Amino acid sequence: MSSRVASGTPASGEDSLIARYFRPLATAPGAFRLDDDAAALKPDGNDLVVTTDAIVEGVHFLPDDPPDTVARKALRVNLSDLAAKGAVPAGFVLTLALRKPEEAWLKPFAAALGEDAAQFGCPLLGGDTVSTPGPLMVSVTAFGRVPPGRMVHRSGAKPGERVMVTGTIGDAALGLAILGGGKVHAAATDIAAREMLVGRYRIPQPRVALAELVRDHASAAMDVSDGLAGDLAKLCGVSGVSAAIDIDAIPLSDAARDLVSRGVVGLETLIAGGDDYEILCTMPPDRVDAFEQAALAAGVSVSSIGTVVSGSAVPKFSDKQGREIALERLSYSHF
Amino acid sequence: MSSRVASGTPASGEDSLIARYFRPLATAPGAFRLDDDAAALKPDGNDLVVTTDAIVEGVHFLPDDPPDTVARKALRVNLSDLAAKGAVPAGFVLTLALRKPEEAWLKPFAAALGEDAAQFGCPLLGGDTVSTPGPLMVSVTAFGRVPPGRMVHRSGAKPGERVMVTGTIGDAALGLAILGGGKVHAAATDIAAREMLVGRYRIPQPRVALAELVRDHASAAMDVSDGLAGDLAKLCGVSGVSAAIDIDAIPLSDAARDLVSRGVVGLETLIAGGDDYEILCTMPPDRVDAFEQAALAAGVSVSSIGTVVSGSAVPKFSDKQGREIALERLSYSHF
Repeated sequence: MSSRVASGTPASGEDSLIARYFRPLATAPGAFRLDDDAAALKPDGNDLVVTTDAIVEGVHFLPDDPPDTVARKALRVNLSDLAAKGAVPAGFVLTLALRKPEEAWLKPFAAALGEDAAQFGCPLLGGDTVSTPGPLMVSVTAFGRVPPGRMVHRSGAKPGERVMVTGTIGDAALGLAILGGGKVHAAATDIAAREMLVGRYRIPQPRVALAELVRDHASAAMDVSDGLAGDLAKLCGVSGVSAAIDIDAIPLSDAARDLVSRGVVGLETLIAGGDDYEILCTMPPDRVDAFEQAALAAGVSVSSIGTVVSGSAVPKFSDKQGREIALERLSYSHF
Repeated sequence: MSSRVASGTPASGEDSLIARYFRPLATAPGAFRLDDDAAALKPDGNDLVVTTDAIVEGVHFLPDDPPDTVARKALRVNLSDLAAKGAVPAGFVLTLALRKPEEAWLKPFAAALGEDAAQFGCPLLGGDTVSTPGPLMVSVTAFGRVPPGRMVHRSGAKPGERVMVTGTIGDAALGLAILGGGKVHAAATDIAAREMLVGRYRIPQPRVALAELVRDHASAAMDVSDGLAGDLAKLCGVSGVSAAIDIDAIPLSDAARDLVSRGVVGLETLIAGGDDYEILCTMPPDRVDAFEQAALAAGVSVSSIGTVVSGSAVPKFSDKQGREIALERLSYSHF
C-alpha cells in the first residue's frame, strides 16, 4: 500500500503479503495498483467528504470475531459516516496493525473487504501495514462525494422539526451482551434471534442507499455509533437545540422487544448502547412522508421518534404518560 | 474529531479532551471545528494526493520518546510522502489509539502537532481517538495537491538517468542505535553529534520545500523511509530498471562519516537503515544542475549518487574500484 508496503523488488514478506491480498481490491485507477506511495483522487466538481474511524481488538470487536466480520466492520463504520453526511462512497485507505501476518487471517479479511468495497462502490486506494505487539487495529479513512457545499452537518436541527432514525436501535448492544455471556446470553434462547443480534454487532448495515435522501431532506444528520441517546445529545448540542423523544416510537427489532418485554434488559440499555450504525437525522415535518416513502423504496425503514425543541437541555426520553427514562450513561465513551 | 469524538453535549471525558487539545489545530474551514463526523475538501482543479502512514510505539518510536517528537514524526512521515510525490500539503486526519488520555502527554503532543501543522501548511481536518490496551499508535492520512496528472510516481525511471537523493543517509539509523545502547552508543561520545543523530531519528525533516522541484524535474520519486537500498530497489522494480550506485557519493553527515571511518558501523548499515525521510528520485542528466541549484536555494542539499541502468537486477552499490557492498538486508520490513 503506501510507502512501507508498496511492492516492487525485493519482494519482502510484507510486500508480497500486501500484493497478494490487497492489490486485487485496488480497482480504482488512482490507486496505481498499490505500486506507489500515495493515491490520487481526481476532482469531479464535488466536495470530497473525509471521515476516519478505527476499530481495536478487544474494544470495538472481540478477539475471536471472525476476520471477515472485522474487515466488514472496519469499512462499514466509515461508510455509515459517509451516508449520514449525504456522501456517496469514492474510496478508502486502510491502516492495518498486525501482530504477525497470518494467511489464515489475512485471506478471509481481504476477501470480505473486497466484497464490501465492491458492494458499496468504495475501492481500496492505498494504506499502510505495520507490526504491533499489541491488539489488532484497523483504521480506515474513507472518502465520499457530495455536490459543493451539500455535506449534511450535525448542526442545522431547528425547533419544530422531527427527529428520525433508520432501522432498529439496540440490536448491536444486545449482540455484544450475548457474546459476553451473562443474563442476556442466558435469556436469548431463540437461535435465529440470537444470530441476528450478534450479526448486528459484528456486521453493521451502513445506510449507503439513503445518502442522497438524507442530503435532500435532512437539516442535520449523523450516524448512531455511540448510542442513540448520546449521539442525539451531540447533534442537539452542535445545533443549539434540545429534543423530546417518545420512547414508544423508538424502533426495536422483534428480538430486542422480546428481551425488553421480558425484563431482561431495560430500554435505557438499548438507547445508550453503541454500534447501531443507523442514521439519526432531523427534518421539517412536511418532509417526513416523502423521506419515509423514498427510504422504504430503497429498502430501509425509518421512524419518526420525536421533536426538536428549543433550549440547551439534554434531550428527554419519555413515554406517552410523560414518564421519563433516567439515563445514567448517555453513550459509550472511550475513556 | 469524527463520529466517536466530536464535541457537543454531553462533554464526556473523551469529547472534552479532544475539544481542548485538538480543536485549536482544526483551522481549515472544511474541518468544521471538529464538530462533525467528517471533513470536506473543496475541489480546486488539482488532483488530491492521499497517503497514509502509521507509527506504533515500540516499532516506529520508543516508549520513552517525548510526546512532542511522536506527534511530529507521525505527521512528518506523511509529509515526506507528499513531498516525494510532488504534492503540496492540504491537510490531514489523525487516528490516535491511547491507553488512557493523560494531560501530561496529550498537551505537548497536540502543541507540537499544531506547530508542525502550521509550519508545513497542513491543518488538522478530523480524526478518531480510540482506547487501546496495547501500544500507543498514531495513524495519519495526509492530503496534498498536484496539478492534474502531475503526481510523481515510483515508476518512470529510465536507463541513463541520474539517481539523486536529498540530505544525508543513515543518521536516523545511527540515532536509533544510540538510543538502544550498544557499540554505537559507546562510540558516539561527541554530545552534539549524538544529539543530531538522535534528533534525526525522532524528528524527520520532510522535504516539503522540494515538492514542486521534484514535480518539475524528477521522472520517478519516493521517500526513503525503509532504507536507501531497499527503497531504491522498490523504485527500480516498479520502473522496470536497475541502478548502479557509487557508494562514495552517498551523502553522509560528518557524524555518520566519523563512525564509519572509525569502523564502528559499516556503510551497509546506513544504506539499509530506515527512517531517513529523504527524497530519492531519478532525472535526466541535463536536469541535475538546475535541480541542485534550486534545491540549494530552498535550503536542501542534494547528491547525485549513481545511474539508472537497464535490467531487473537488484541495484548495485559499489566503490570507485568496483568493489561491491554485499547487503544482507535491503531494508526494514515489518514482518
